[in-house]
Order: sequence, then C-alpha cells, then structure tokens
Amino acid sequence: MTHDITGLMAALPGLDWITDPALVRQKSRDFFWYSPVLKRQLNGARADVVAVPRSEEEVVRLLAECHARRIPVTTRGAGTGNYGQAMPLLGGVVLDMSAMDAVLWAKPGLVRAQAGAKIIDMDRHTRAAVGGELRFHPSTKRTATIGGFIGGGSSGIGSCTWGILREPGNVLGLRVVTMEETPRVLELRGAELDLANHAYGTTGIITEVEMPLAPSEDWLDLTLAFPSLMDAARFGDALASMDGVVKKLVCVLAAPIAQQYFKGFPALGETEAVVLAMVAPPYLDALVPLLARHWGREVARIRTEDAPVPAYEFTWNHTTLQALKVDRSITYLQTLFPAPDHLALIARMEREFGDEVPIHLEYVRLGGRVCCFGLQLVRFTTEERLNEIIRIHEDAGAPIFNPHAFTLEEGGMKQVDAAQLAFKRQADPLGLLNPGKMLAWDDPDWTPDRPGKVYLFPAAEDEAD
Amino acid sequence: MTHDITGLMAALPGLDWITDPALVRQKSRDFFWYSPVLKRQLNGARADVVAVPRSEEEVVRLLAECHARRIPVTTRGAGTGNYGQAMPLLGGVVLDMSAMDAVLWAKPGLVRAQAGAKIIDMDRHTRAAVGGELRFHPSTKRTATIGGFIGGGSSGIGSCTWGILREPGNVLGLRVVTMEETPRVLELRGAELDLANHAYGTTGIITEVEMPLAPSEDWLDLTLAFPSLMDAARFGDALASMDGVVKKLVCVLAAPIAQQYFKGFPALGETEAVVLAMVAPPYLDALVPLLARHWGREVARIRTEDAPVPAYEFTWNHTTLQALKVDRSITYLQTLFPAPDHLALIARMEREFGDEVPIHLEYVRLGGRVCCFGLQLVRFTTEERLNEIIRIHEDAGAPIFNPHAFTLEEGGMKQVDAAQLAFKRQADPLGLLNPGKMLAWDDPDWTPDRPGKVYLFPAAEDEAD
Ligand SMILES: Cc1cc2nc3c(=O)[nH]c(=O)nc-3n(C[C@H](O)[C@H](O)[C@H](O)COP(=O)(O)OP(=O)(O)OC[C@H]3O[C@@H](n4cnc5c(N)ncnc54)[C@H](O)[C@@H]3O)c2cc1C
Ligand SMILES: Cc1cc2nc3c(=O)[nH]c(=O)nc-3n(C[C@H](O)[C@H](O)[C@H](O)COP(=O)(O)OP(=O)(O)OC[C@H]3O[C@@H](n4cnc5c(N)ncnc54)[C@H](O)[C@@H]3O)c2cc1C
Repeated sequence: MTHDITGLMAALPGLDWITDPALVRQKSRDFFWYSPVLKRQLNGARADVVAVPRSEEEVVRLLAECHARRIPVTTRGAGTGNYGQAMPLLGGVVLDMSAMDAVLWAKPGLVRAQAGAKIIDMDRHTRAAVGGELRFHPSTKRTATIGGFIGGGSSGIGSCTWGILREPGNVLGLRVVTMEETPRVLELRGAELDLANHAYGTTGIITEVEMPLAPSEDWLDLTLAFPSLMDAARFGDALASMDGVVKKLVCVLAAPIAQQYFKGFPALGETEAVVLAMVAPPYLDALVPLLARHWGREVARIRTEDAPVPAYEFTWNHTTLQALKVDRSITYLQTLFPAPDHLALIARMEREFGDEVPIHLEYVRLGGRVCCFGLQLVRFTTEERLNEIIRIHEDAGAPIFNPHAFTLEEGGMKQVDAAQLAFKRQADPLGLLNPGKMLAWDDPDWTPDRPGKVYLFPAAEDEAD
Repeated sequence: MTHDITGLMAALPGLDWITDPALVRQKSRDFFWYSPVLKRQLNGARADVVAVPRSEEEVVRLLAECHARRIPVTTRGAGTGNYGQAMPLLGGVVLDMSAMDAVLWAKPGLVRAQAGAKIIDMDRHTRAAVGGELRFHPSTKRTATIGGFIGGGSSGIGSCTWGILREPGNVLGLRVVTMEETPRVLELRGAELDLANHAYGTTGIITEVEMPLAPSEDWLDLTLAFPSLMDAARFGDALASMDGVVKKLVCVLAAPIAQQYFKGFPALGETEAVVLAMVAPPYLDALVPLLARHWGREVARIRTEDAPVPAYEFTWNHTTLQALKVDRSITYLQTLFPAPDHLALIARMEREFGDEVPIHLEYVRLGGRVCCFGLQLVRFTTEERLNEIIRIHEDAGAPIFNPHAFTLEEGGMKQVDAAQLAFKRQADPLGLLNPGKMLAWDDPDWTPDRPGKVYLFPAAEDEAD
C-alpha cells in the first residue's frame, strides 16, 4: 500500500517531520524482538514518515489530514512496548508523542501531564512540587512515557499496593483526539476511561493524562535470600498482605535466575531464592520478625536513589531482559496465579517444570486480593513443548497472557467489548488508528479459541456478573 | 482495701491532684454502661484519687511512689472505652493523661505525640503541618486520646484501607514507663509494640506514640441506599476491594437501623439498607458504575468538614450509641465475618435472625483481605437467647468478641501470650497496673472456655503457623 505522504507533508509544513530512513526505521520498532515469534512476524514493519507534534492542535491537524488521505497513524511514546504494540503494520505515519512532554499541573495527590511526558520526569516534578509520585510505573520508568504506559502497559512497580491500571481510580482522566473528518477532543473520566485504557492507540490519541499520586517515599531496595522458592513466595505473600507496611515492590525469583543472569548482583547461595522488595524506611522494623519466620536473610539494602541500577530494573519485564542479555535462547510466559490458591498453584508448577521454567513472580493486588503475576523464564526447546507448558498452566487454573501476540485480544490482557468497538466506530470510522491490532475490528466474528478465557482487562459486561 | 493516699500526695506535692468526690467518680468511669452486664459488675468501681501529670518525669515519680506504697494505678485517656477498660477495680490512683497532649513533631507520613493528645487535635496539626492525617481513628475521634486508642481500641474509620491497630506498620513507636521500684522508660518498636498495644495499660504507661500518616483528604460523606441488605453488603464489598479508590469508611446498615435510630437523617424507604462511605473527591467518578450495578442510589453527599454530625458518628460503635439513645433495651454483638465467605455468612445470619439482630457491618482489611466486622444490634429478650445467638454465630464460623467482658482475654480481642506475660513480670512485678484486667496474670492456669477461639490480637506464637 502506498500513501500520499508528499501531499500530507506539504499540507502541514510547520510540523516536525522525520524522514531519515534509519531514524524512521528505528521509530517504527519497539521491543517486539523480545519474542522470537513477533520478531519473525513484525520485523519488516515500518512507517513512511514520523511526525513529532508539539501541541494538541498539531495532533488534531495531523489526524484530519491523514483522515482525508486515508493514511494510517500509529502512535508512539518511547517505543518500549514488548508486543509490537507501537509498530505500524500498514506503514503510514508514526505519531511520535515525545515532544508533548509537559507536566501541566500537580496538586496534592494528583498530577496532569501531556501524554508524551516521561514517567521519571513526572515523578521528579511531583516529588518536588507536592511530595507525591505515581502510584506505580513499569520497570521501563526511566524511558517510558505515561501515554505509552496507559496505551500499552498494564501494571508494574507499586501494583503490589495499588493494583493495576485497569482498576477504578488508577487513571482519573484522559484527553483523547479522535480520527474523524473533523477530529474531536474528548475528556474521558470514570467508566469511559476503559475506551482508551490499554487500547494500543486504536481508539484515539491520548494527549493528556490525569493520574492519582501516592506519597513519595525515600524507598529502600532490599535484596533478601531464602532457602527455597516457596519460602520466598510465602514471605512475599505475607509482605504483600501487610496493609500497614508501605511498599512498592515484592518480586520473587527462583534460583538460579539472579545467580545466572543478574550482572553485579550480591553473592548468593547456589540454590537460594530471592525477594526484591522496595519498602519505606519507617516500616523496616515490621519486616524483621517476618523475615525470621520465613528463614530469610538480608543480603543487601540500598536507597533506590543511590543504587547504581535500581532494584526495579531486575523485576517485572526487566527480569526477562536481564536474562536475554546473557542467553538469547530464553523466552518467557506471562501468567496469572489467581487468589486464593496462588501459592498452591505455584508450588505445583515448580514441581512440574523445575529448572525448565524458572519461576519469577510479581505480587499484585487484583480486585482487592493479593495474588501474583508470573513472568517465568522458559528454557525453550520446541514450539510444541512451549504450547504444552502453556496448556498445563491453563488447565491447572493459571491463565497465560500470550506475550507472543501483537493484537489486543490474543495477548489475552484485553477482551474487546461492545462499548469499545462502538466507540471505535465513532472515533476511528475508517480504521486508520494502529491498524491490525484490534482483531474484533478486522474480523467482527472473531472469538477466542478457548471459550472462558481469562482477561486482565475483561469487557464491562462480563464484570457485572 | 485502703491505700496510703495521704502519704502519696504528701510525697508529690507538685502534682495536679483531683480529690473532689464527684470528679473522682466521673474520672473512674467510662462507657461501660453500654453493656447491661458490665453496668451491673463495675458500677461501684472508683479511684481514691486522680493524678494529672504534666510530664513524663511526673509519671515516673508517680509510679515510683505508688510502687513504694503498693497503690494500684489505672491509666485514663478520655475514658471513652466501652468495656470498663479504664475503671479502677481496686481503687487507688487514676492516672489521667489528658494534660500530656502535645504533638511533638510531624514529618511527611509520620507524627509523634504525647499519649494524652486528642486524636482530632493530632489530625488538625498534621493536616496543616504536613498534609497528613492518622490512617484511622475510632468513631470517638472528637474526644478520644491516641494513647487510649492504642491502649484500649482496635480499629475504626480508615481500617477499610489500612487494617487494624494490631497490624505491623500501623503503630511505629511507643514510649512506655514501667512500674518498678525504679521505673524504666522504654521505646518499643517493631514486634515489641505488641507488649503494650491493646494492653489496657497493664504492662506500662504509654507516654509517647509515633504513628504513620495517610495523606489528608477533603473527605466526602456519602449516604447511599439499596433495596436490600445484601445489595448494600455486596456494594460495600466491591468498594472495599477497590485498591485504586481512596476511601476511609464503608459501613453497611440493615433497615431499620438508620430509619429508627438516626436523628436528623435523610429520608429513606422503609426497607432500604444504607451504606455510609467516606471517599476522596477525585474517586467519585469511579463509584457511579458500581452504584448502578448494585441498584444503589445516592441519598446525600456532604463534605465531612461541613457535616453538622460527621457520617462517622453514625458508624462503628457510634451506631450502637445512636440506637441506645432511642432504645435502652438494645444491646449488641461484635463479630468477625472472616474472608472469603463473609458475604455468605452474613446472608445466612440475616435469614436466621431477621429483625431480632439488625445487621451492622464495618468493612476492614485483615491480613490483607477484605472482610467485615459485625456490630449488630440485638433486640434483647433473655440472657439465654443472647447466648444462643452468640453460639449460632460462632458455630457458623463468625467469632464473637464479647462486648460484655472487662478482661483482655474474655473480650476475645486479645489473647495474652507468653511474651506479654513475661514482659508484665518485669514491667509491673507487683501487678499494680490496672489490676483485674488481665486474667492470665491473676490466674496463670486460665484458659478460654472454648478452645480454638479466634482472637483479633492473637499471641505471637499462634501466628507462626
Ligand atoms: C524491559 C521491559 C520492561 C517492561 N516492564 C513493564 C512493566 O513493568 N509493566 C508494564 O505494564 N509494561 C512493561 N513493559 C512494556 C512497556 O515498557 C510499558 O508498557 C511502557 O509504559 C510503554 O511506554 P512507551 O512510552 O514506551 O509506549 P510505546 O511502546 O511507545 O507504546 C505502547 C502502546 O501505547 C500506544 N500509545 C503510546 N502513546 C500513546 C498515546 N499518547 N495515545 C494513545 N496510544 C498511545 C502505542 O501505540 C502502543 O500501542 C516493559 C517493556 C520492556 C521492554
Ligand atoms: C460511642 C463509642 C464509639 C467507639 N468507637 C470505637 C471505634 O470505632 N474503634 C475503637 O477501637 N474503639 C471505639 N470505641 C472505644 C474507645 O472510644 C476508643 O478505643 C478510644 O480510642 C479510647 O480512647 P480514650 O482516650 O477514651 O481511652 P480510655 O477509655 O481512657 O482508655 C482505654 C484503655 O487504654 C488504657 N490507656 C489509656 N491511656 C493509656 C496510656 N497512655 N498508656 C497505657 N494505657 C492507656 C486505659 O487504661 C484503658 O484500658 C468507642 C467507644 C464508644 C463509647
């Protein structure tokens, strides 16, 4: 497909355009190469041109001109997504939000920023201005944008206290530009937030976000070692269950993940499991008896601010990244171990797979309950075996969110619901926003291959019962 | 028993003493009359004299002189306890903490105050100084002291988010004076806090407390009505489970509690159940779909600050107080409906007792799980029937904390453990602190009549398994 890019650029001469082929290629890619499957499928995807708007008005004009010319638009924050979410499957324009990075205001407990603001810059700003910080952030905090997090992320460091992006109250407002003949600018709040939250930019361009803040803390990175994975998991569960203890991270790592893959990490016994935790200093006292009860020992403690590499860059999807840096044959799973039987399920999977699937857990709150996500590493042998591993997890009651799929639905985090489809029909009637990422749009008869599949972002109707 | 009060007063002429008989009688009583049983048992209790120290040094000297003369000392905050906790069973001195009411310092997230500080004054101070407020408070916030809350309370408005006093992190430090020949001044932190937390002042006098703060909010009091108790309870459960929504109160009241007992309350349908909630303004949007889903309607909304009577004074033990003002024959229960079957249990008790036991629930977090306390009203007929009601609850799996008992153990909130008994042996070797309130001290062979009883403050050893 060829697009009238020359006409587009001529119509918007004041816009910042990137045309250098190497740069355009770079801005057309994200961390899709994490997955060998996506790497094969998406490697060729690239935009014709990259636009870098400096204001919402420029976004509106860009969308109007692209609409007039039927040119696809794929939005990009920092391009740290790891499912090819930001990759332009049909070419056209990549809309790079990185120049719209202003923090608009901060009040106690609240912040509003342009969608291209980097998460780390928002935290710096709100910490100084109102003693607050974002409730949670992806482990890519140092590079990712807030709009990209909401458009393509789900949860992260802080979700052990606050839950995930999808949960009411974790996003307060989104300003969204639609892709119509005359684009509209909407402010979504309350239940409407779901129309743009984790939509890969298929239902509109987010230009501003309003987020709740947690009190900022002088976090401590704690490295704790335990005799076994299940000791570590039980400690993690107990810590995650302590509502009185201010914490931001409870990550559990089976041996030999840290031993084998973490550069510059403190010395550990060969079979020791690790908990990486972030705790506010006044609450350390509360951990002492808990650690003793679970046979744990403190290996290292450092202020997050002072750490050469913050602990969180060994957690969440960064665990996999650290492993991939050492061993390119590693792949991974994304699993939900649902409450209340998550510990029993984890023990069962450990027995079942042993070192073939080294277990990595992130404690989260989901619907008010403590449970964990698994981001297990997999020592890959064959595609059949990988599918078997997935099937065994799902049959045991631990749903897998496939990290080897680039559509919203197949990744399994999001189930497209009628309200969202109806919204896309209005907001993007020609289907030009990030085309190819929403299966339910391209194929209205699409249904999941596994009925009863569990979604992290279920459709609104499903939740009612 | 007669005590050498004359000698004591002569030894400490600089201390503020209250000797006026009417005042001494008043300062020897609390809200014990809540319970018809306690009213009968404790009505005669009174001190010989009341001492009102202005400093820790005066506390130390008072305890030393009382120790020398074997005079019992019963500490009093504001005397709002409702189990006779602060009543001097063996006479002697009532140590009135109300003059030691300074807020010592406040930092972001933390406050330290003298134990006699009123909770409402602490909140005013920290709100202005650091934008913080205590995580939770009893419904007696406007009169109660922080030392009395820790000495005799358990939980309250805010426990739906933060859990109860007993949970790690909800109290950070206690400065305690022992009653020995030469009293010692100890700073308890971490696991040691349990030695004085909810001890009715039997193990030492708390002179200072260090508490965590939550961000202060401009709370809204919401009155919500539902077609049935179970609709209200399910809404409450869903709201209490929303980790992203900043809330301080989720109280559920069966009809006709509000209709019959709440003065100046908005009009309600005869059979409507009520939820009283405190929510921070940015999170109202998140409640709209939730309310619709549970067939609720908003009856009233007002800033807590502007309310003539704040919503919280219709909740927790204040619900019973409001009912008692209208009908002196009412009595009540204190129940735990434990997770995860609390909703089913509540439905069962509603079917079982109907209007004989109008259900009042307070949502709390306990060990990281959403569940509720029941403070049900009971339309009292006979003592046998009351015992039967209690037995039916306990057999169904809903333990009762007897509100008609003045000892730590029989109330069932606290199980005296070996560590605490050992501490009392050192801290109060003559057993002069609030004598008669710790069964395990008076009768080392004492065991609960029901083995396997559930305690809100279990002994440390029990938690390990
Ligand atoms: C090592 C590693 C660790 C990671 N850890 C986490 C983690 O802990 N938690 C987590 O949730 N994710 C994680 N991710 C995924 C990703 O980094 C985050 O979701 C990140 O927040 C994405 O931000 P970004 O700015 O890079 O977005 P991009 O990758 O640029 O975009 C993500 C998606 O959002 C869309 N989008 C971007 N901006 C907008 C906008 N303004 N309006 C509408 N749509 C938009 C894009 O089209 C794309 O579909 C990780 C990825 C890697 C590689
Ligand atoms: C209407 C009503 C509502 C209530 N609501 C709640 C509620 O929501 N949650 C709750 O937990 N309680 C509640 N209570 C009980 C009580 O009001 C609270 O626990 C309150 O915090 C007690 O504070 P106080 O200053 O009145 O303490 P007091 O009643 O004076 O003392 C309570 C106990 O602590 C001891 N004590 C007091 N000060 C010290 C000290 N400095 N050092 C050591 N020991 C000390 C006393 O000896 C006594 O045993 C309620 C009571 C009533 C009557």
